[in-house]
Amino acid sequence: MSENKRCAIFYVSDGTAITAETVGRSLITQFTGIDFIEKRLPFINDVETAQAAAAIIRNTPSDFQQLVINTVVDLELRKIIHSAGGLKLDPFNRLLRRIENNLGLKRDPGVGRTHGMSDSTSYNDRIEATNFALSHDDGVNLNLHQADLVLLGVSRSGKTPTCLYLALHYGLKAANYPITDDDLERMRLPADVMAHKNKLFGLTIDPFRLSQIRSERRPNSRYAELRKCQAEVSDAEMIYHRNQIPFLNTTLTSIEEISGKIMIALDLNKKLY
Amino acid sequence: MSENKRCAIFYVSDGTAITAETVGRSLITQFTGIDFIEKRLPFINDVETAQAAAAIIRNTPSDFQQLVINTVVDLELRKIIHSAGGLKLDPFNRLLRRIENNLGLKRDPGVGRTHGMSDSTSYNDRIEATNFALSHDDGVNLNLHQADLVLLGVSRSGKTPTCLYLALHYGLKAANYPITDDDLERMRLPADVMAHKNKLFGLTIDPFRLSQIRSERRPNSRYAELRKCQAEVSDAEMIYHRNQIPFLNTTLTSIEEISGKIMIALDLNKKLY
Repeated sequence: MSENKRCAIFYVSDGTAITAETVGRSLITQFTGIDFIEKRLPFINDVETAQAAAAIIRNTPSDFQQLVINTVVDLELRKIIHSAGGLKLDPFNRLLRRIENNLGLKRDPGVGRTHGMSDSTSYNDRIEATNFALSHDDGVNLNLHQADLVLLGVSRSGKTPTCLYLALHYGLKAANYPITDDDLERMRLPADVMAHKNKLFGLTIDPFRLSQIRSERRPNSRYAELRKCQAEVSDAEMIYHRNQIPFLNTTLTSIEEISGKIMIALDLNKKLY
Repeated sequence: MSENKRCAIFYVSDGTAITAETVGRSLITQFTGIDFIEKRLPFINDVETAQAAAAIIRNTPSDFQQLVINTVVDLELRKIIHSAGGLKLDPFNRLLRRIENNLGLKRDPGVGRTHGMSDSTSYNDRIEATNFALSHDDGVNLNLHQADLVLLGVSRSGKTPTCLYLALHYGLKAANYPITDDDLERMRLPADVMAHKNKLFGLTIDPFRLSQIRSERRPNSRYAELRKCQAEVSDAEMIYHRNQIPFLNTTLTSIEEISGKIMIALDLNKKLY
């Protein structure tokens, strides 16, 4: 049994609660020596759902402290949630007041919902970009004129999830091209790929990790052999160097970090949806 | 020309800046009558990058007000960024102090990085879930025992992007099954699908919107005809009703909202990565 203190953290929102959860996650990563249990309470937008949320908060076992990150805008609903007790944190109220006072603006409550579909153009961009990523996955389509970027890498180096993340979050049209044994032998990428040199970004990975990933997929195959993985990774990195293609080692990097670094390297300053 | 005030908002972070951008986006949606220009300044983690970020902030055209959302932890780097001027907002400092004071905890700065790869198990879960979504897309694989959920819907109702979002964000294994003309005619789903009734969730969509989406894909086809879309949507909803499958209209709903509502309906309380 852990001797740690225990805390239940609630993310309460009239929308998806993604913002509340993102803020809360940032806060709790700063503390050690305490066990956090997290509970999302999204779409709290009428008295009934607010009362249900308050009941959940009120029923926390008594050996837990309670932390309530509340981004609900409606004042009556906020009161219902606050009646349940716990330490109440509103990430926005004070910041909004500072913006009002310093920039001479008045907020217009209820205008914006961060993760609602306020802008259907950007929604369509994301869907279209996701379809693009799927139809240009794994080199199946080398018609790259419409692509915003083209990810390169040996098989299982993390290209597909990164392309999908960039599409879903930034509406970027991300294609990917798997570097083949033929390419490695010739130490050259196909002309159709090199024609888009300013869109290329390479991924690389620790060969031990690569061998492990490939072994889960095809146990005891030549494809998964450490020696084969080492040779592929080393040759792929050589191709990146020779062609001055920016690249990144994904081994200890999250999809979010990889995506952020690619956008910097290729100067793609897209908004997060 | 807009007569609005203008404001440049900077998201400064030692990591991906996703948290800063999420917070900033929530703030600026509350204001009208002002045009915001946003700029992400991620991976500010040494004096050199901090000075470069400060220079960018300092060089904002003079008719813009400046708002700096700064989540950099290191004090020296914070000072460099703050030297550039503008209204400085730190979303976390005050909240962290309240948690320290109320829960009797001390923060351990530099421990957590929200979107770094602190937990490689969850990273692997996400990648595995993404691969699962791709290999169980569009009914290509009806081996659904491993699935956490199965999305149903007629062609182009939004199944694939939602499955990929759930996989990338929550590590959920989301399969999808496109309801076919045969299913609609028989008013029945295949036995392999119905065997997982408690994992099923239906999507539906406005037939006019569906016809528009399909027309972009296959102009002047029977597939895109409004009458055909109306019949398909109406029959699919009938199947959901008859089988008591929870469902949602995606027409005016963002991927984030759809995902949030599916997790509530199927009682999948997964953490956001």
